[in-house]
Amino acid sequence: MSDSAARVLIVMAMEAEAEPITAALRLAETTGPSDLPCRWYRGAADHLDVLVAVNGVDARFDVDSIGTVPAALNTYAAIQAFNPDLVISAGTAGAWHRDGSVVGDVFLSGVSFVNHDRRIELRGFDAYGVGSHPGIQTRDLADRLGFKVGIVTTSNSLDETPHDAERIEASGAAVKEMEAAGVAYVAEQAGVPMMAIKAITDLVDDPAPTPQQFIDNLSVATELLAEAVVAVLLELDEETFTST
Amino acid sequence: MSDSAARVLIVMAMEAEAEPITAALRLAETTGPSDLPCRWYRGAADHLDVLVAVNGVDARFDVDSIGTVPAALNTYAAIQAFNPDLVISAGTAGAWHRDGSVVGDVFLSGVSFVNHDRRIELRGFDAYGVGSHPGIQTRDLADRLGFKVGIVTTSNSLDETPHDAERIEASGAAVKEMEAAGVAYVAEQAGVPMMAIKAITDLVDDPAPTPQQFIDNLSVATELLAEAVVAVLLELDEETFTST
Repeated sequence: MSDSAARVLIVMAMEAEAEPITAALRLAETTGPSDLPCRWYRGAADHLDVLVAVNGVDARFDVDSIGTVPAALNTYAAIQAFNPDLVISAGTAGAWHRDGSVVGDVFLSGVSFVNHDRRIELRGFDAYGVGSHPGIQTRDLADRLGFKVGIVTTSNSLDETPHDAERIEASGAAVKEMEAAGVAYVAEQAGVPMMAIKAITDLVDDPAPTPQQFIDNLSVATELLAEAVVAVLLELDEETFTST
Repeated sequence: MSDSAARVLIVMAMEAEAEPITAALRLAETTGPSDLPCRWYRGAADHLDVLVAVNGVDARFDVDSIGTVPAALNTYAAIQAFNPDLVISAGTAGAWHRDGSVVGDVFLSGVSFVNHDRRIELRGFDAYGVGSHPGIQTRDLADRLGFKVGIVTTSNSLDETPHDAERIEASGAAVKEMEAAGVAYVAEQAGVPMMAIKAITDLVDDPAPTPQQFIDNLSVATELLAEAVVAVLLELDEETFTST
């Protein structure tokens, strides 16, 4: 790491998830890209220069721009503008009882990021569809902070169809959300190390519907997410950045 | 339209689909973005300044970068660099016997672009997931050129699951492919008029597997696509650009 502060880009989908983080770090809003709804917040956090890049609110639907396409575009624009040393996809996510997960668990990402909704049965394309984008080693960091480690799997839907379940079983993923693989794709293309921090709002294999769990637990998970993001930032060191 | 040539951006996913078009228009390869695998080709076509932006080959999987995320990133980078007056998503696609479609049909897009694999059952998010990104009016253009018009629906998979079928029935889409909604999302954010040109390689409701139909018919459909793209470019006029 050079004398200048290491730059960490944190990509987030929802304003409600980002607000406690930008508040805790006292980040100031800064200019984002003109042709995207993104909102960016920047400031110093301990030894780091941090940019929290939120996908922003869709102008036509007045909802947060969730999903892989807005996340990838936000990441791309932020990498161009900020030239980060590390990209973090942070947000809330689902997990499974079968893995022993509970609401409020915090996961750091495993060594790959996968998609479970890209089925392309043409020679060579199926593995491309899964993606398996590289993530940095997070085990030591997770152990120091008391977090879990699991493979994060991404789709553009909140639910889990039988087709999704088959793919998720194949990847062994423990965390299910809607942006990380899109972020990781861009980070891979740009050659920037990548990780994720995900706080669990819902259990996919619980009898309660996912949307209801999500709504009920979003506030608690968001607070835990903010604490986890701040804790990770304070723990980051050169070894973390380069442990691919 | 000003005295300077109108600029048309054509976003394509596969090199094999783009090659006959760049050859017919005698476009020269130009510099694309450094952090994406895109390959860009630019030149004059009649009264137009044309950029064909191909998503490019994935460095790790050695296959064309198909799907919404690479298409959206390519579109975003090309809009930044080229400032087009019109964006066209061009490529091969699937259609349905039930609509009277046959292999080799050429479709121009309808007035909206939808996703059929983004199911988000949270208040306000479901319609966001569908997208319904605006497309320009193409009926007159299609009538003049002998093409069909249909709503284009996008997912990141080659197949059609029961969940997909339900969404496709709801949207009334006649053309199914893997990029257009991602391209249209970016065009909408940037306020650039958008359309698609799609040549049919496979019938989704045919007994033959889609991958086999796609492989068997790709070459023929690609030639028809190239002829269609050139024909559309020659027909484009100011009325087309602004008929949203």
